Amino acid sequence: MNNHIALFPGSFDPITIGHIDIINRSIDLFDKIIIAVGVNAQKKNYFTLEMRLKWLHEIFQVHEKIEITNYEGLTVNFCKEKNAQFILRGLRNTIDFEYEKTIAALNRSVEDSIETIFVMTAPEYSHINSTIVRELIRYKGKFDHLVPACVMRDAMQQ
Amino acid sequence: MNNHIALFPGSFDPITIGHIDIINRSIDLFDKIIIAVGVNAQKKNYFTLEMRLKWLHEIFQVHEKIEITNYEGLTVNFCKEKNAQFILRGLRNTIDFEYEKTIAALNRSVEDSIETIFVMTAPEYSHINSTIVRELIRYKGKFDHLVPACVMRDAMQQ
Amino acid sequence: MNNHIALFPGSFDPITIGHIDIINRSIDLFDKIIIAVGVNAQKKNYFTLEMRLKWLHEIFQVHEKIEITNYEGLTVNFCKEKNAQFILRGLRNTIDFEYEKTIAALNRSVEDSIETIFVMTAPEYSHINSTIVRELIRYKGKFDHLVPACVMRDAMQQ
Amino acid sequence: MNNHIALFPGSFDPITIGHIDIINRSIDLFDKIIIAVGVNAQKKNYFTLEMRLKWLHEIFQVHEKIEITNYEGLTVNFCKEKNAQFILRGLRNTIDFEYEKTIAALNRSVEDSIETIFVMTAPEYSHINSTIVRELIRYKGKFDHLVPACVMRDAMQQ
Amino acid sequence: MNNHIALFPGSFDPITIGHIDIINRSIDLFDKIIIAVGVNAQKKNYFTLEMRLKWLHEIFQVHEKIEITNYEGLTVNFCKEKNAQFILRGLRNTIDFEYEKTIAALNRSVEDSIETIFVMTAPEYSHINSTIVRELIRYKGKFDHLVPACVMRDAMQQ
Amino acid sequence: MNNHIALFPGSFDPITIGHIDIINRSIDLFDKIIIAVGVNAQKKNYFTLEMRLKWLHEIFQVHEKIEITNYEGLTVNFCKEKNAQFILRGLRNTIDFEYEKTIAALNRSVEDSIETIFVMTAPEYSHINSTIVRELIRYKGKFDHLVPACVMRDAMQQ
Repeated sequence: MNNHIALFPGSFDPITIGHIDIINRSIDLFDKIIIAVGVNAQKKNYFTLEMRLKWLHEIFQVHEKIEITNYEGLTVNFCKEKNAQFILRGLRNTIDFEYEKTIAALNRSVEDSIETIFVMTAPEYSHINSTIVRELIRYKGKFDHLVPACVMRDAMQQ
Repeated sequence: MNNHIALFPGSFDPITIGHIDIINRSIDLFDKIIIAVGVNAQKKNYFTLEMRLKWLHEIFQVHEKIEITNYEGLTVNFCKEKNAQFILRGLRNTIDFEYEKTIAALNRSVEDSIETIFVMTAPEYSHINSTIVRELIRYKGKFDHLVPACVMRDAMQQ
Repeated sequence: MNNHIALFPGSFDPITIGHIDIINRSIDLFDKIIIAVGVNAQKKNYFTLEMRLKWLHEIFQVHEKIEITNYEGLTVNFCKEKNAQFILRGLRNTIDFEYEKTIAALNRSVEDSIETIFVMTAPEYSHINSTIVRELIRYKGKFDHLVPACVMRDAMQQ
Repeated sequence: MNNHIALFPGSFDPITIGHIDIINRSIDLFDKIIIAVGVNAQKKNYFTLEMRLKWLHEIFQVHEKIEITNYEGLTVNFCKEKNAQFILRGLRNTIDFEYEKTIAALNRSVEDSIETIFVMTAPEYSHINSTIVRELIRYKGKFDHLVPACVMRDAMQQ
Repeated sequence: MNNHIALFPGSFDPITIGHIDIINRSIDLFDKIIIAVGVNAQKKNYFTLEMRLKWLHEIFQVHEKIEITNYEGLTVNFCKEKNAQFILRGLRNTIDFEYEKTIAALNRSVEDSIETIFVMTAPEYSHINSTIVRELIRYKGKFDHLVPACVMRDAMQQ
Repeated sequence: MNNHIALFPGSFDPITIGHIDIINRSIDLFDKIIIAVGVNAQKKNYFTLEMRLKWLHEIFQVHEKIEITNYEGLTVNFCKEKNAQFILRGLRNTIDFEYEKTIAALNRSVEDSIETIFVMTAPEYSHINSTIVRELIRYKGKFDHLVPACVMRDAMQQ
């Protein structure tokens, strides 16, 4: 039987409760979700890859259906390598929508066996994004309501 | 084990190749898709419920995983009645997106065990909608590239 | 001294907790908010004007700064009649935005002494609109989390 | 040599200075612009077809390159009848854009020899639409800054 | 009594007539507007902070209700420091809207005593932004219709 | 007689089949289309100016009505230099729309004799953009369906 494996790609710099909500709400739909930290040599990240992976492992260690990894290169290529037929993405607003519509169409034009599946970010989390969380961390703002406890703990020690 | 049953609600007045594309692209994800023709006493349809159901049966008779039915009332209530944990919807553009975001959030606030799952309409079908197909039928325009063959056949005889 | 009087126009058919949130969040900014139920002979409402006004009075009776009334005709004309220099509106999504941008520009072109002031609907209420509440009432869905208690009480008795 | 003929379809109920701006700004691009008042038996108009045509004739009588007419049925069919290779449309906001993108793609799928050409409505006219002008006329608001003088003159006498 | 103090944050690099329009149209609503030039060590500006502050002082010196300053760090923190209960922002288009909706929700989640108040940019100014003004300055384009006279005078001497 | 000359500006880094579609669909409207590669000293391109120009010459050598060139500075200034009364642009989605609306309005405010003319990108090409093509080239993904053959040939040799 064909397993339903979804890749959930992102930079998770850092992971927010918005990301976790997307996973929780779609976990029932898949046999496995592979959370894949994309590594792009041309982008500078705020937190190290190690730190970002450590947080993901700490948060999702109890989930039997979740695998955590990192990758470089094209997302569809990594999907094939991991035997993932689906890409999972959340949608927050029309900017997300236009961007994701473009990427999903492009990915299908490159590899039509892979389908992108979307869930809407819950309204109460739709204003959360990693860019703004980093800004709050940088300027010592309150951000404990936006990230899981482990990110809170480690980000404050920096 | 929990089956993955999705409800695909709509008026299908008439069904277009855009609807069929949504189903084909997400059928692998579910154990069953229930295509549910919504009946709303306050809306006047162009084609009869019988015709719309007949077309759906003709198109999807070879699909073991597809069930066809009709319903009245709230979509989430019908989901519970049919034991469907998911609602399936396509997204074409930002107008669709804003509407569907609202409906999905509302449905979750009414019944949080039901999740709405979205796929992007393929770009080459993103301009197809039933309203415009009806307009083409009414004014004798070309529409055979927008609907399945059975709709073409029957709509021309009207 | 010039008082800051804002008109908050709408059909309030019925009032939702989204409307109440808009008022609560902007009440500090004004000396008075006039909640004005617009009456349009060409639109059929679900609840009677009397019922809608009764609810508003019941909800806001403790607010010294709130006045409740109804009006017909152009909103800017009623603003002048009531000496309101501001129109208050909430924004939920890009559809609201494009509509309100048009109306605000038009109102200013008709009467440039009146300015429209916007607040963003809180994310957790951004999916609430009266159309959908009426649908839930009509089909006996759960809606107590979307409207104030008095609407809940009276709407269920219908 | 191939003439450049554009059809500018609309209901013009009534014509506004926004419509006139679109024509003025694109007239250099075409050999002829056919302003075509669409007649739809299922839509009720505010002003009679005769009145709407009369206004168009009065406004554009000095333009050698402008023809005024009315039509029923599909716009692309009327284009072929009039030998118009182009449809001309204005864009005001994202709602217009999503609607026009759909219609343009559909028209091309029905008749690929006809291309829709767009110009952006000037920012200072982007809030003007016929629906709101009718509302202002109905409720005796100021609207002389939104319509040409002949509409002003006749609409006030109603 | 509680004063109505609004912070109007921005980089004002340079200030445009769009910014001035936002202030003029909302000045009646507040007892004081603090125009606050945000300083971000990670962003390179075109004009020096001194120049940008000089222009603001020159333009608004006659306004008793306007204070001009600069700040670093989180906007909500600076609001508390300045005792400003409101943040004032203009909205030009749906891109602005989605961005501002996110920031306003985030600011409220960090500090719920501060509310963001929006006015729509006037249609005739909705195409003006500082990025494009800088481009015009850089390439010797006409920009005197986009900025106040003092910016014109000084920018040309660079 | 006044010739209809349109400038089609872009970075064409690289040219895609989306660009070619825009040109093919609007070529009938103009006497000449000048494809103008914008050179911006502050932006780093992926392909050299020479390569980008070579591709354009190779693709459009059979078109009598097409001229290929490059420019620096303001687009409207280059239009005047080339005697082009029109700027030609394609629209893919609402992000494009809001950006292009701003630029078109600005260009008209700087030089009102130049009008920007838009065509909608065909739905089947609306997901193609040069940024993503470069990403596919960089990571050895399939991109031959997105670019003309000459770009394919040369890009793979890099």
